[in-house]
Amino acid sequence: MLDWEHIFATRSSRMRASEIRELLKLLEQPDIISFAGGIPDPALFPDAEFKTAYNDIFSGPQVNAALQYSVSEGFKPLRDWIVKEVAKIGIDCTADNVFITSGSQQALDYLGKLFLSPKDTALVTWPTYLGALSAFNAYEPNYDNLSVNGNRTPEAYRETAAKLGGDVKFAYLSADFSNPTGETVDKAGREKLLALADELDIAVIEDAAYQHLRYDGEAIAPILAMDIAAKGGIENTRTIYCGSFSKSLAPGLRVGFVIGAMPVIRKLVLMKQAADLHSSTINQIAIEHVASRGFDAQVAKIKKAYSERRDAMLAALEKYMPKNTSWTKPEGGMFVWVTLPEGMDGAELLAKSIATEKVAFVPGRAFYADGSNANTLRMSFSCANAEMIDEGIKRLGRLVANADAEQQEALPII
Amino acid sequence: MLDWEHIFATRSSRMRASEIRELLKLLEQPDIISFAGGIPDPALFPDAEFKTAYNDIFSGPQVNAALQYSVSEGFKPLRDWIVKEVAKIGIDCTADNVFITSGSQQALDYLGKLFLSPKDTALVTWPTYLGALSAFNAYEPNYDNLSVNGNRTPEAYRETAAKLGGDVKFAYLSADFSNPTGETVDKAGREKLLALADELDIAVIEDAAYQHLRYDGEAIAPILAMDIAAKGGIENTRTIYCGSFSKSLAPGLRVGFVIGAMPVIRKLVLMKQAADLHSSTINQIAIEHVASRGFDAQVAKIKKAYSERRDAMLAALEKYMPKNTSWTKPEGGMFVWVTLPEGMDGAELLAKSIATEKVAFVPGRAFYADGSNANTLRMSFSCANAEMIDEGIKRLGRLVANADAEQQEALPII
Repeated sequence: MLDWEHIFATRSSRMRASEIRELLKLLEQPDIISFAGGIPDPALFPDAEFKTAYNDIFSGPQVNAALQYSVSEGFKPLRDWIVKEVAKIGIDCTADNVFITSGSQQALDYLGKLFLSPKDTALVTWPTYLGALSAFNAYEPNYDNLSVNGNRTPEAYRETAAKLGGDVKFAYLSADFSNPTGETVDKAGREKLLALADELDIAVIEDAAYQHLRYDGEAIAPILAMDIAAKGGIENTRTIYCGSFSKSLAPGLRVGFVIGAMPVIRKLVLMKQAADLHSSTINQIAIEHVASRGFDAQVAKIKKAYSERRDAMLAALEKYMPKNTSWTKPEGGMFVWVTLPEGMDGAELLAKSIATEKVAFVPGRAFYADGSNANTLRMSFSCANAEMIDEGIKRLGRLVANADAEQQEALPII
Repeated sequence: MLDWEHIFATRSSRMRASEIRELLKLLEQPDIISFAGGIPDPALFPDAEFKTAYNDIFSGPQVNAALQYSVSEGFKPLRDWIVKEVAKIGIDCTADNVFITSGSQQALDYLGKLFLSPKDTALVTWPTYLGALSAFNAYEPNYDNLSVNGNRTPEAYRETAAKLGGDVKFAYLSADFSNPTGETVDKAGREKLLALADELDIAVIEDAAYQHLRYDGEAIAPILAMDIAAKGGIENTRTIYCGSFSKSLAPGLRVGFVIGAMPVIRKLVLMKQAADLHSSTINQIAIEHVASRGFDAQVAKIKKAYSERRDAMLAALEKYMPKNTSWTKPEGGMFVWVTLPEGMDGAELLAKSIATEKVAFVPGRAFYADGSNANTLRMSFSCANAEMIDEGIKRLGRLVANADAEQQEALPII
């Protein structure tokens, strides 16, 4: 076998298999109660609507276009539909500001590619979406801890970046029911972030993958909407909004989108032309077909189901978790973030849990750019029913209590 | 508006709109005879077969899986089908050697990302596929002229790369009916290339997008098949084979594949996990459905149609082109490559042609990494019928003859 390592580019050393992902492969076993996934419940997919969509495509005049190459910016009627939809949440833009991607994961890859030279700094929350770190890693950046409601000065970020040999290029965050914590950044936090970005002259990447999934509390305007309002129009903004149909309609079609000022969109279009030409034509047409006929009804359906599951998980955590643990109370999304007693390791707990309690979750450390905070867990309620949630959390509570007792026994007496 | 340029990564300066692409937007006019496209004829798509495929997916037990997230390496039954299919052309591998991409364009992007650090050298033929240059450009390489049947020594390539500040990482080529020239590399050329790659210890990227479309002459084993035979198994090879369903079935689904040794495939899978998670699940299932039921019949159908068009184009060129022009005689694919009299500029000719003769083609300069050889044209015969081909080439011949006469008049008397 060849020694490939010396032929590979330097960036390839940052593409590693995650131990967690390997562990999660065990979850295919049917007797495991899994809170690991973070994927939508397939029972809620609008499959009848998609069946009609594909059937209409093959029965109508669009069939040849649907199977053919198409433009890199994306299917125009879908971009038009997105323009109308986001106008409802204060994003005033034109189809020229909208770019279709193969899921919002691709948006993160492209934005890393657009902004990050090696050694540049990306500001990300501690913790942040694991997939964003993976996407950005290919461009060999450094990370600094974006403290949304904290007191770090622009100077502090700038100095850290300079020490690491590059510039701060963007702040990435999910402001609504974020993956992994389920938490939301309030209006004041968003304003503070925009002021910081203005001061640093960097882009803001707003990952809105879960934005539609609010179950209670009042909606907060997207960061992009606030930026547009403050600057008098999208062309003066620095916020790049990443949306997705994966959580609302279906992920298997790989359709997401980016909204931003035209200089950014034009570069992304050129990048896509070079990287994969365009996202699947037929799937973009199918998404537009389903979204334009029943997006609101579909979102209402999944919100009802997921909010009941969130309630069940919060109730079960209250009921079964030991006193020295805490967790977030998300107003939407798919995740609750659990903090275990100091010194406990989520990855070790998962190994035990799969072996003895048959409950799965994602250890929290992977979501920290610096690998810190091992005593955290991401729990998804999207794919489990209330009964499974109660049983699963009961087992988890027992496991944590036992592990905590063992840990206390093991402490040296001082 | 923000000054985005200083926030963008250095690589973004190599993502530029091509003048040619802008010019080609004019081709939407219905009265133009276009040989520019290089896209499959939509009239030949197996649309009835795809209609059945999607209908079966939505009527069967696979529907939820088809709409859900799936594994980054690709749909296993499709990878199994590919293993069986390529075994017929001497590529002996397992499903672990096969990786599904969103079209073979994505394979080129990922392979650039995997191998090229800034200033590394990619060897490409002069001319080469324009989209390969665009894909690789994002990784800021240099290019050197891969002379397949020439006499450059390994040392010469190595020295040039070192002068440019990096290493030679791979040789990229399309060995069968290449885009843009339509030419094929013979067996001896392939052997020579593999020997060169062994000597330089680099990868070989074999772009097989057109390999199925052979109209006459005898098939030559793929470079990967020769590499496997010489090295005693795929794990010892250095060739990475990029295949596509875009030319045989339909491009709008964006499904292609890569075959190679496992260290390469494993890295590509990690890369895809980070970059777009996976290619569209439903489209991979649909491609497997159609391919496994009638791939050979579909390929036979398009070969018949395209070979007639190739014959028509070669006949028309013979009939109408001035004596001081020449062109390739492809045994397959979609392209004929025309060389105009020295000093003539393909881009200028296209501007004139669209204005006066209403015939379109792609000027050849864009296919040269160094922008040389402006007196060349790429002519595609895939989307025109024999009558249009005759008329279009008649007009082109007239235009070239006139331009040549003007050019001779304009020559200084020396």
